[in-house]
Amino acid sequence: MVVATQSVQDLCINSVRFLAVDAIEKAKSGHPGLPMGAAPMAFVLWDQFMRYNPKNPGWFNRDRFVLSAGHGCMLHYALLHLTGYDSVSIEDIKQFRQWESHTPGHPENFETKGIEVTTGPLGQGIANGVGLALAEAHLAAKFNKPDCTLVDHYTYVILGDGCNMEGVSGEACSIAGHWGLGKLIALYDDNHISIDGSTDIAFTEDVSKRFEAYGWHVLHVEDGNTDLAGIAAAIAEAKKVTDKPTMIKVTTTIGFGSPNKCNTAGIHGAALGGDEVKLTRENLGWNYEPFELPADAVSHMRKAIERGASDEAEWDSTWAQYKTKYSQEAAEFEALISRQLPAGWDSVLPTYTPEDKGLPTRKHSETCLNKLAPVLPGLIGGSADLTHSNLTELKISGDFQKGQYQNRNIHFGVREHGMGAICNGIALHGSGLIPYGATFLIFTDYMRAAIRLSALSQAGVVWVMTHDSIGQGEDGPTHQPIETLASLRAIPNLTVIRPADGNECSGAYKVAITNAQQHSPTLLAFSRQNLPNLPGTSIDGVAKGAYTIVDCQGTPDIILIGTGSEVNLCVSAAEKLAGKKVRVVSMPSFELFEAQDAAYKESVFPKAVTKRLAVEAAASFGWHKYIGTEGDTVTLDRFGASAPGGVCMEKFGFSADNVLAHAHALLG
Amino acid sequence: MVVATQSVQDLCINSVRFLAVDAIEKAKSGHPGLPMGAAPMAFVLWDQFMRYNPKNPGWFNRDRFVLSAGHGCMLHYALLHLTGYDSVSIEDIKQFRQWESHTPGHPENFETKGIEVTTGPLGQGIANGVGLALAEAHLAAKFNKPDCTLVDHYTYVILGDGCNMEGVSGEACSIAGHWGLGKLIALYDDNHISIDGSTDIAFTEDVSKRFEAYGWHVLHVEDGNTDLAGIAAAIAEAKKVTDKPTMIKVTTTIGFGSPNKCNTAGIHGAALGGDEVKLTRENLGWNYEPFELPADAVSHMRKAIERGASDEAEWDSTWAQYKTKYSQEAAEFEALISRQLPAGWDSVLPTYTPEDKGLPTRKHSETCLNKLAPVLPGLIGGSADLTHSNLTELKISGDFQKGQYQNRNIHFGVREHGMGAICNGIALHGSGLIPYGATFLIFTDYMRAAIRLSALSQAGVVWVMTHDSIGQGEDGPTHQPIETLASLRAIPNLTVIRPADGNECSGAYKVAITNAQQHSPTLLAFSRQNLPNLPGTSIDGVAKGAYTIVDCQGTPDIILIGTGSEVNLCVSAAEKLAGKKVRVVSMPSFELFEAQDAAYKESVFPKAVTKRLAVEAAASFGWHKYIGTEGDTVTLDRFGASAPGGVCMEKFGFSADNVLAHAHALLG
Repeated sequence: MVVATQSVQDLCINSVRFLAVDAIEKAKSGHPGLPMGAAPMAFVLWDQFMRYNPKNPGWFNRDRFVLSAGHGCMLHYALLHLTGYDSVSIEDIKQFRQWESHTPGHPENFETKGIEVTTGPLGQGIANGVGLALAEAHLAAKFNKPDCTLVDHYTYVILGDGCNMEGVSGEACSIAGHWGLGKLIALYDDNHISIDGSTDIAFTEDVSKRFEAYGWHVLHVEDGNTDLAGIAAAIAEAKKVTDKPTMIKVTTTIGFGSPNKCNTAGIHGAALGGDEVKLTRENLGWNYEPFELPADAVSHMRKAIERGASDEAEWDSTWAQYKTKYSQEAAEFEALISRQLPAGWDSVLPTYTPEDKGLPTRKHSETCLNKLAPVLPGLIGGSADLTHSNLTELKISGDFQKGQYQNRNIHFGVREHGMGAICNGIALHGSGLIPYGATFLIFTDYMRAAIRLSALSQAGVVWVMTHDSIGQGEDGPTHQPIETLASLRAIPNLTVIRPADGNECSGAYKVAITNAQQHSPTLLAFSRQNLPNLPGTSIDGVAKGAYTIVDCQGTPDIILIGTGSEVNLCVSAAEKLAGKKVRVVSMPSFELFEAQDAAYKESVFPKAVTKRLAVEAAASFGWHKYIGTEGDTVTLDRFGASAPGGVCMEKFGFSADNVLAHAHALLG
Repeated sequence: MVVATQSVQDLCINSVRFLAVDAIEKAKSGHPGLPMGAAPMAFVLWDQFMRYNPKNPGWFNRDRFVLSAGHGCMLHYALLHLTGYDSVSIEDIKQFRQWESHTPGHPENFETKGIEVTTGPLGQGIANGVGLALAEAHLAAKFNKPDCTLVDHYTYVILGDGCNMEGVSGEACSIAGHWGLGKLIALYDDNHISIDGSTDIAFTEDVSKRFEAYGWHVLHVEDGNTDLAGIAAAIAEAKKVTDKPTMIKVTTTIGFGSPNKCNTAGIHGAALGGDEVKLTRENLGWNYEPFELPADAVSHMRKAIERGASDEAEWDSTWAQYKTKYSQEAAEFEALISRQLPAGWDSVLPTYTPEDKGLPTRKHSETCLNKLAPVLPGLIGGSADLTHSNLTELKISGDFQKGQYQNRNIHFGVREHGMGAICNGIALHGSGLIPYGATFLIFTDYMRAAIRLSALSQAGVVWVMTHDSIGQGEDGPTHQPIETLASLRAIPNLTVIRPADGNECSGAYKVAITNAQQHSPTLLAFSRQNLPNLPGTSIDGVAKGAYTIVDCQGTPDIILIGTGSEVNLCVSAAEKLAGKKVRVVSMPSFELFEAQDAAYKESVFPKAVTKRLAVEAAASFGWHKYIGTEGDTVTLDRFGASAPGGVCMEKFGFSADNVLAHAHALLG
């Protein structure tokens, strides 16, 4: 096929394709995806349907676009460049996948304006898309008025075979179908090829039928390579169905245009190579130099700037009307999307004295959530089918359900991973919503990829994890975290907090909400079992990560360090260490402590005090940084057991007596 | 409903139900599942279809039964007791969920004979079931002869709504449909209730249609509470379809028989309570005391002993014929199922000298796998769609596919979690197969729940992880592990090995295969990039976890400790530390080092040497145990970046010069 003259549409599509071809040839290594087959659907979407403002990428009411098949990121960078975003210059494209470029190997929202979420780990993007669509549905239900539609945008996702094989996408799409999120439109790039070869070797299910089973509206474009009208018709039809998300299967040819490599796995994981690039240029009638763009294509696509400005101006006018007519709601909306926390919001967090009744910290968490719910209208979340164990229900709200999108209690079902990615999407909607997601601490294992992405992509999520140790009890070792705290503490940019009592729970939520507002996730670990309120604990103490709650005169002989449910054991043991100078440090958060200055750190853990005993009903891994070579731990480096929680704690050595024995041994 | 007289079937079913009721009442706490609705399907299965030998629970050719809805474990314990397994006495049942009992809160294969796999974390069991069925299909294809069917059993799974919401079950069931594993039969206990309430709140998809989309044979029993004939007919029909797995949706009533709590979420998470127990006994016409069993029920169900002995005797006769007719295959079969490793198997592992060409350790891994494949016929596995990146193909074999079950290269598709749980199932088939599963190290996050279960449930799997650091390069921070090694090292009973070169790769496989044979999993972390072969490395060194590869005379001034791709930086830096007494320790495995005696540990890391520098392109978390309070690290406590791997390494400080600078700083 030699194309003598090309329509402007073809010029645009081939501009996308060859920007990617040229960038990938230049970068050479890795396994970037060439968007030869996906370019037409993306072009039609961006050219005819999507509303966005290249000169104001953060415009609130823009349609959200997620490239769930993140390895095809050059598709997205090419579109950003061609439509006139300042974030991706031609120089940036030439720096594809290079040190400190704005065009990394997978789309990163924190690197490139115009990218909504960070994708690459497969299946995450479509699940983020569910979160973005949920956020839109929630805000629309909350703020829109019959005569004034303030919140009104679509979420478009392009996903591939890999995304559709991942369980996380199945979880998220099942719940999206349940919720009937009609403004979520997914284009499935059905190209039959994954890295190992034809999808025939591992993926022969009927994807369309599966999405129908989820309750989605499903369409099929048979020739996604060239049938632009068919793609446009499908998207238009998708928009007509308002009570179901739509999945448009768009059948394409991977590497379309490459005479020798199209429809092969070879093209999935590597550059075309010089000779094949030449043949592909010839085949698609592309007579331009590398990185050269036809003026007609650029001018056509840059119309997006004018269109975007016009769309935004129209919305501004709606917003102006809204402010006049609905000043109270407008103020709330403005506060929300500007991400302001109301002055004094944290004053609702309760404090306690040792005389107050001891409760499980998950119960204190419930109190905090319910105190915060009225003052933080953006707080929205729920549990993966453990609402009444995690205690995460906001009593002032109903359930978020189809037709009840204004509500704030989300039932995620037994879908931890989907929950995680959906929460990330809600946070990255950027509208001031503060999502929280809850399950048992052990089941962070199911959603770890999403938790990591919250930390990487600056998603201000609050992860509410309960049943945080062998104190979980009867459910046994499959349900009892051992290594879980260590594994989470090791994640960069994630703050992990394990509070000891009521005051520390309030302190934990103060940090978590502040972090969320600052685009940073926090993971809270709460006990199943009752814990006493301790002397010396405080909201401010939590913010420092570790602080002295019981002290002695002069340099301590020994420091007992506890977290969460074990701090009270340290306090009890300290009382029994008659004649010894004992300090008890509560250390709810390693990360918060590491953020303190050296003088504060020395004040809590003086170098001179080498007898240090850490007590935590979890793995010892990571504790030696604080106990040093002469310290000791009362920890647990084996799996737990099924028995009542109190029995487990006692048998595994988490008793004041055993702490005391270890302290005596250390003191010699 | 008052039942005056009961059929023996009803007596059996109610025996199962009330053993569970009584055990759960006695244990009180937690959220065990009452098998009131599931008891009939389980009874029919165990009474009419399943082949098993209560007096020889490990009989090779038994049907495998997995209770994927593991919280209903009392169902399984009751069946084990009633059919005559010695592992569950009535006393054991009275000790349900108590310290050191054989009846823990979820089924644990390592605690209770007759339990095949450890379930509880939802969705794992059905995915393990796919692995069990895969193992059967593989061994049948390999060993069965037209005139002698040696391997021939079903895998039956009972799963619930929770399992069906989890992504891992979707992944495993999709690939099971692709493979057409006809002897996998899953009974879906469709009771409409999960912990948060009616499944209507979060789970309204059409499960049957979804399974049809996966390529399964799907049946429905509308009244699973009482229609025993319908259940039996469905299982019989399932067995007739030999080229597809079958999912039988069995609609039941949760808490069947409880007049006030049936069909409520209340019954999912708690005991019935005394009054309701009384009413339920009345309602089901159950006049027996707690833990009392009708003699007719016991004698009916104990017929399983005779049946099992007969089935086993029949199989023994087949086996005897097989040995006569096919002595060579019989010898191989016997070696396999007795879990013998052939004498001298490890002699095939290659060794290297520094003169040998440097290669990526993933390439050495490929060599080891291919050297081992001929000598270890039980080695079987593959990758989650990264075969040619992970380099895990066994060249002597074809692909495991429908109709090609004798082959050993498994294409799992982009389904890391499903792969993990399937590998666990293969290992726990107990037939000497050594499964391996591969992906990028970072994507252990997707399959962490399965990796943890391999460690907990003593599944001898080899986890082959490549692209083990920022050396991954261009794919960027979503694909670059930072905290991953630490998070895995923290898991009890999992050996993590990060080899430095060719010799250490051989050493890593020697440990991994030995571990697998001893029911213990190993995780191997390999580099994407080339690494030199180093002086002093050895297979035996790896087995010790940490060992000196470059040493000095007398007490070292400083010890440089490296793992994997950073060991060579330590060697280079040591060469440049002129005039200093330098030791270089290669530390491929924390866990293997911890298993050494104190004298050996002191010999590698003498207490007197406090200047220690750990070098690893990963988080520092966990290293202070070895570097002490006066040591330092060259590590990375932030996310990576998209750039060529070598650039990432250099920019983030993983160069001999930077190691040298840190060493100089430490030496003062």
